[in-house]
Amino acid sequence: MHSGLKPGTTIAAVAEAAKVSKTTVSHVLSGKRPVSEATRRNVLRVMEELGFQPNYFAQALIANRSLAVALIVQDLTNPYYPLLGRGLERAIGQAGYVVMLFDGAAQPEAAEAAVKTAIQRRVDGVVIATAGAERAAPMLRQAGIAVVAVGSGPSVADLDWVSADDELIAYDAVTHLLTRGPRRVATITGPANASPGAQRLRGYLRAMADQGKPEDQNLIVAGDWTRDGGSSAMSVLLDLPDRPTAVFCANDVMAIGALDAAFGRGLRVPYDLAVVGVDDIEAAALLRPSLTTIRIPALEIGRTAGALLLDRLAQGAAAPSRHILVQHSLIVRESG
Amino acid sequence: MHSGLKPGTTIAAVAEAAKVSKTTVSHVLSGKRPVSEATRRNVLRVMEELGFQPNYFAQALIANRSLAVALIVQDLTNPYYPLLGRGLERAIGQAGYVVMLFDGAAQPEAAEAAVKTAIQRRVDGVVIATAGAERAAPMLRQAGIAVVAVGSGPSVADLDWVSADDELIAYDAVTHLLTRGPRRVATITGPANASPGAQRLRGYLRAMADQGKPEDQNLIVAGDWTRDGGSSAMSVLLDLPDRPTAVFCANDVMAIGALDAAFGRGLRVPYDLAVVGVDDIEAAALLRPSLTTIRIPALEIGRTAGALLLDRLAQGAAAPSRHILVQHSLIVRESG
Repeated sequence: MHSGLKPGTTIAAVAEAAKVSKTTVSHVLSGKRPVSEATRRNVLRVMEELGFQPNYFAQALIANRSLAVALIVQDLTNPYYPLLGRGLERAIGQAGYVVMLFDGAAQPEAAEAAVKTAIQRRVDGVVIATAGAERAAPMLRQAGIAVVAVGSGPSVADLDWVSADDELIAYDAVTHLLTRGPRRVATITGPANASPGAQRLRGYLRAMADQGKPEDQNLIVAGDWTRDGGSSAMSVLLDLPDRPTAVFCANDVMAIGALDAAFGRGLRVPYDLAVVGVDDIEAAALLRPSLTTIRIPALEIGRTAGALLLDRLAQGAAAPSRHILVQHSLIVRESG
Repeated sequence: MHSGLKPGTTIAAVAEAAKVSKTTVSHVLSGKRPVSEATRRNVLRVMEELGFQPNYFAQALIANRSLAVALIVQDLTNPYYPLLGRGLERAIGQAGYVVMLFDGAAQPEAAEAAVKTAIQRRVDGVVIATAGAERAAPMLRQAGIAVVAVGSGPSVADLDWVSADDELIAYDAVTHLLTRGPRRVATITGPANASPGAQRLRGYLRAMADQGKPEDQNLIVAGDWTRDGGSSAMSVLLDLPDRPTAVFCANDVMAIGALDAAFGRGLRVPYDLAVVGVDDIEAAALLRPSLTTIRIPALEIGRTAGALLLDRLAQGAAAPSRHILVQHSLIVRESG
C-alpha cells in the first residue's frame, strides 16, 4: 500500500513526532492561524515521513472550504463542453481543486437544481457554462461562492466571464472568403435575436462593409442551427437571380446542410460555391470536401475560466470583475 | 432567496422548534443512531419549515460518507465518455450523489493521481472507465471505496463490471452484411491483441462460420483505429484477385478511411462495396453516403454502472460481484 494512504496515522502521532502541540498541527492543516515557517515545514516534513493522511471532511469543516469547483454545463454531449471541462480541470487541478460535474443544465430546472446542490455541497467556486448565469450568480455569491460565467451571453455586471469573440469569428471567416477571390458572400445566421447568432451576424456585416461590399438583405437568411435549416436557407439563397458564390454559415451543422443543397443542384464546392462554418466539429475534417471552419478554443476557454476562478478565490469578492475574450483560429480545408 | 438556503438556521434552532435535544437532531442527520420514526419525521418537518441547511462537511464527517462518486475516464473528448457520464449522473443523482470528474486517465500517471485524489477526498464510490482498473481496484477497496469498472477489458475477479458485448457487436454487423445479399465480407480489425479489437475479430469469425463461409485469412486485415489505417487496409483488400464486396470495420473512423479507398477507385457504395462501422460517431450520419454502424449504448452503460455502484454501496463489499453486458443497436444507413 502506498505510504501516502496510511489511514492509521493521527494528528496526535504527528504532534508527538514533530514535538509540537496537536493544536499547532491543526493550524498547519487549516492554514487559519499563523504558524512560524520553520514549525510549519517541520510539521509538514513529519506528516510526509509518517504518511499522514488528514481527514478531508475534517479539514474542509475547519477551513470551511471544499477544494471543489462545480462545472455546470448545458449539454456535455456537445463536443465543446468536454474540452472546456478538460481545460478547467487542468487549470484548477494544479491548485488542488477537483471538478464536480453537472450536465444537462439546458433545462432551467436542472440548472437550478445544480446550483442548489453546489451550494449545499459548499463548493468553493462555480463555472456556469449555460444560459441563466444572470439568475444563478447572485444566489451563489450570497452563499459565498465564487462564480465565473462562460459563453457568449450578455455581459453580467460584476461577473467574471470568459467567451469566444463571436463577432470577430464571423468577421474573420467572411474576410477569408472575400480576400480569396471576387465573391458574392451570403450568410446563414442563427436565430437573429439570440446569442451567438446576433454577434456573428454583426461580424458578417462589419466584414462586408470593411471590404466595400454594399449591404444586401437578400444575402442574409436565418437558419436554426440544424442541417435541414441550413439546407433550406441555402436553397433560398440559390434561388436568387444573382446567387451568391460563397456562404458563411454560423455553425458547421448548417454548413453541412448548405453543402447538401449545393450538391443537390450539381454545384461544385468550392468552385461554384465556397462554404465556411464555425465550430470545427469532428465531421468537418471527415467530409468530402472537408469543411473550412473556425475552431472555438474550448480548452483555452476552460483553462481561462479556471484561472479567473483561482484569482477570484485568492482576491475575494471585492476585486473588480474581468471579461476575457479567447482567440479562435481559422481552419482552412477544402470547402472554402 | 430560496428558503432552502438560509445559512443562519442552526441545529439548536431546529431542536428547540421540534422540542427535542440537539443530539437527537444530529442523529436524524447522521442516520447512525436509531431515532423513532415519529421523532424523525417531526425533526425533518421542522427542518423543512425553517429552511435548515445542514453543514455538508459536518454531515459527511459524522456519517463518514461524501455522497460523491468519482468518474475516471480515459478521454472525455471521445463522445462515448460524455454520454457515459450523463448516464452515471442520472443514476446516482436521484440517490443524492454527485459526480467528481477525472479526465485524461489514458496516461497511467493521471489515472493513479485520480485514484489517490478520490481516496483522499473520501468519495463513496469510483467508476473506472479506463485501462488499469485491475491495479486501481485493490487500492480503492482497501480504502473502503466501492468500485465499478466500465469497458471491454478483461474481467477482474470480484469486480463489478459493465461493458458492451464486443463480440456480439461484430457478430451482428457481419450477420447483417451476410444476410442482405450473397457477399464476400472482409474485416478491418483493431490491433489484434488488444481489447476490443480481439473480441470484435472473434465476432466476425463466428458470424462467418455460422453463415457457412469458409475462413479466409486474406479477408482479415489489421487497422490501427485511424482513418489512414482504414484506408491502407482497404487498399490491401481491394488489391486481392477476388476482392471483397463488403467490409466490417471495427470502428467508424476506419470505415471512413475504407470509404476513401473505395471512392479513390471509383467504387459505388454500397453497390460495389458495402461498409459497416462501429461507434455511431457524429460524422456517421453526416457523411455521403451515410454510414451504417453499431451504436454503443454509452448512456445505458453509464446508468448501469451507477445502478451497480448504488447496489454495492447498499449491500457492502461481501456481496457477489456482477458483470453486466449492455445491448447495442444496429443503425442501418446508406453504406451497407
